[in-house]
Amino acid sequence: MRNDLLGSFAAVVGEKNVLAGEHDAAPYLTDWRRQFSGPAVCVVRPGATAEVSAVVRLCAQAGVAIVPQGGNTGLVGGSVPTGARPEIVLSLSRMNRIRALDALNNTLTAEAGCVLADLQRAADAAGRLFALSLAAEGSCQIGGNLSTNAGGVNVLRYGNARDQVLGMEAVLPDGRIWDGLRGLRKDNTGYDLKQLFIGAEGTLGIITAAVLKLHPKPTASATAWIEVENPQRAVEMLSHLRGACGDRLTAFELLSRTCVDAVLKHRPQVRDPLPGSAWAVLVQLGDSGPDEALHALLERALEESAAPDAVLAKNEADAQALWAIRETVPEAQFGNVKHDISVPVSKIPEFIARTESALRAEALRLPAGFPIYCFGHVGDGNLHYNVGDAALISRREEVSRVVYEVVDAFGGSISAEHGLGQLKRAEIGKHKPALELELMRAVKRALDPQGIMNPGKVV
Amino acid sequence: MRNDLLGSFAAVVGEKNVLAGEHDAAPYLTDWRRQFSGPAVCVVRPGATAEVSAVVRLCAQAGVAIVPQGGNTGLVGGSVPTGARPEIVLSLSRMNRIRALDALNNTLTAEAGCVLADLQRAADAAGRLFALSLAAEGSCQIGGNLSTNAGGVNVLRYGNARDQVLGMEAVLPDGRIWDGLRGLRKDNTGYDLKQLFIGAEGTLGIITAAVLKLHPKPTASATAWIEVENPQRAVEMLSHLRGACGDRLTAFELLSRTCVDAVLKHRPQVRDPLPGSAWAVLVQLGDSGPDEALHALLERALEESAAPDAVLAKNEADAQALWAIRETVPEAQFGNVKHDISVPVSKIPEFIARTESALRAEALRLPAGFPIYCFGHVGDGNLHYNVGDAALISRREEVSRVVYEVVDAFGGSISAEHGLGQLKRAEIGKHKPALELELMRAVKRALDPQGIMNPGKVV
Repeated sequence: MRNDLLGSFAAVVGEKNVLAGEHDAAPYLTDWRRQFSGPAVCVVRPGATAEVSAVVRLCAQAGVAIVPQGGNTGLVGGSVPTGARPEIVLSLSRMNRIRALDALNNTLTAEAGCVLADLQRAADAAGRLFALSLAAEGSCQIGGNLSTNAGGVNVLRYGNARDQVLGMEAVLPDGRIWDGLRGLRKDNTGYDLKQLFIGAEGTLGIITAAVLKLHPKPTASATAWIEVENPQRAVEMLSHLRGACGDRLTAFELLSRTCVDAVLKHRPQVRDPLPGSAWAVLVQLGDSGPDEALHALLERALEESAAPDAVLAKNEADAQALWAIRETVPEAQFGNVKHDISVPVSKIPEFIARTESALRAEALRLPAGFPIYCFGHVGDGNLHYNVGDAALISRREEVSRVVYEVVDAFGGSISAEHGLGQLKRAEIGKHKPALELELMRAVKRALDPQGIMNPGKVV
Repeated sequence: MRNDLLGSFAAVVGEKNVLAGEHDAAPYLTDWRRQFSGPAVCVVRPGATAEVSAVVRLCAQAGVAIVPQGGNTGLVGGSVPTGARPEIVLSLSRMNRIRALDALNNTLTAEAGCVLADLQRAADAAGRLFALSLAAEGSCQIGGNLSTNAGGVNVLRYGNARDQVLGMEAVLPDGRIWDGLRGLRKDNTGYDLKQLFIGAEGTLGIITAAVLKLHPKPTASATAWIEVENPQRAVEMLSHLRGACGDRLTAFELLSRTCVDAVLKHRPQVRDPLPGSAWAVLVQLGDSGPDEALHALLERALEESAAPDAVLAKNEADAQALWAIRETVPEAQFGNVKHDISVPVSKIPEFIARTESALRAEALRLPAGFPIYCFGHVGDGNLHYNVGDAALISRREEVSRVVYEVVDAFGGSISAEHGLGQLKRAEIGKHKPALELELMRAVKRALDPQGIMNPGKVV
């Protein structure tokens, strides 16, 4: 039966796009952090929507499940098989055409397999901005970005991946193609179905293409590294800068001293912008018009604030050096207990204080003096809150329980931008109202009654 | 049985909040444009979410349907009974508390019955902007705004009602309360259920409260009335202004000469800003900082453009006079065949040219020389395209068929911001893919298997 199925797939996508050998399939079966791995009947690489449709029909007939996969850069095991039942990996990589770019409508129509950085470049060449930007942009694909509602560094100003979508084409779990590729900014004609597929991590169908929003391209930018005494002062600084600079503020990132020190140790050639500062904030402004006006605005806003000290980037190289520190934080403290949480922005200071004191409480009996790496997109209420070193990994569950208890107390989220995938599928049951999980399952049953779309993920 | 039900309702909400007499109930049974009217068992006015829940449970048990109603300012008959089966009107008006305002988190938590203008005022008092703004803001309610995904004049910069929502509380068709009142900017923990209720026009459940986004309050504004030769030049002007002013551009409205003339006739005291111009564009800019800088920016941008002529508002009174012209257009040409359409912004000029020539084609045999009033939110691709005078109303279907054929040819929408309600429920079947309608019905069945939520609307 397996051979019949492989033959049927090959008839649709061509033999060389059905990867059944262990060696060929391997890169598709394990996530990039090597936390999750599972077997697949094969990997199928369709080159067009009609081929996706035909492959899904074959799977639906055979009762074989489907794991849609983009750049496979996710952090929660959403894009690799679980091994619990027969599955194929359906890779969208070959569907990487930009179907249209309409500069006057500020839209770009892209297939799911387009690499994010390629879309940014295409928009730029047309004098526009495609606002989604994140660390994996050189290899992640837009279909995956939408399926996981990716966040990144521009959320404060431009929103999440969800906010970049005007229209969508998707293949449903029975193989039918839904053409919702409308490039409209207003369309109130019934339920907004594309919202269901965004952030569903491939459990309701396969996004094959989307109409994406473009924005005016900022011509000026200003970057500063600012010392703040504590997280409370950081949140006040955010409020002050939004008041003074309005929507020019595109990024507002917080870094604890431990994060900066980890980077300095990991990359000895890096220079500390403000040695000795307890906490640092990295801000980015963007605007139309010339750089000078924006730099002057930022300078004035910082003077009016009570920041003990700040460094303004004089040029692009300065700015890149400051951003390099922020972007090196993840690899500078790789092996520990990681969290991707969000709380209301106003609760960030209390969250940080209460979580640290709970983790260091004697009753918990964690080894004394372990480091806490606290950094992230404070403008969005999103912190990457990483605890300890490799020695603490064996106590991951206890540590996370403490962190998540505080998250719950502030009405927060245990997965702000990474999704649920396999990693947090069971955990979420402890944090969401039972009724909400029931509604999610009702939606899942309505769209995927056979349950063949990415089983073992999300719901 | 009716008396039993009335008694049960009274036990929940108090006798004076069950309106069963003809006189008391009348205002709730007819829409404000007096196009739609239907009978109801009674009108029930709960004062809290728990009361909504109890009333819905009683209806579900009795098999009586529910028409949720806010300010009853809709244009498509979505908030009044159809008369096809026993229904109650459930008015949210008494639920008008602001539950919380968190300026540091830029959020406001409001109950469904809050009047939109009250929310704008509350945000303003806290030094913030609540960005939703539309003609009915003095009487429409936020629950209705969200249920219809309202648009308005700030969509270009701030998005539709959907884009203002972070969290939601809703009563499901079986009476259970879903508490999704999270004030988070990032939360990727499963399907984003609130998106289903937004724009569903009360057919999936009842929105009882929401966490809404606030923005930095613009301190500067600039307004101009600009002559353009034709719609093509208007779209080019839009692109030019977005390039020069970036996201400062908050409104970009087009008006045909017929619209301006109708206003001048309807309100003889109004002064024509640019007599003789074929088409006019009204633009609005907003920013932090002082007025002067913004005025200078707009002046420079207009000089660089090829606009034949323009009037800049020197002060708030000037600006209000210009906006008054735009806002008087609807009442200045009240009785004719109206459309609320959208197409990609880049297709606006072709849409206008092609539709006019199709309407004036001899084969259609419409009376010669009828006026066309074309105006609206060109920045969003949304036109209010109104044809003829009262004499043409009897030929509404023919006229609309011609308009909608062109809308379909450009991949547009037959209801950009007004919704479907009763008015366009049948019509949408001719314009949407059958598969999309089927998916909508599947979602409806999953959430409202008994079909008691606002029957005869949308799906």
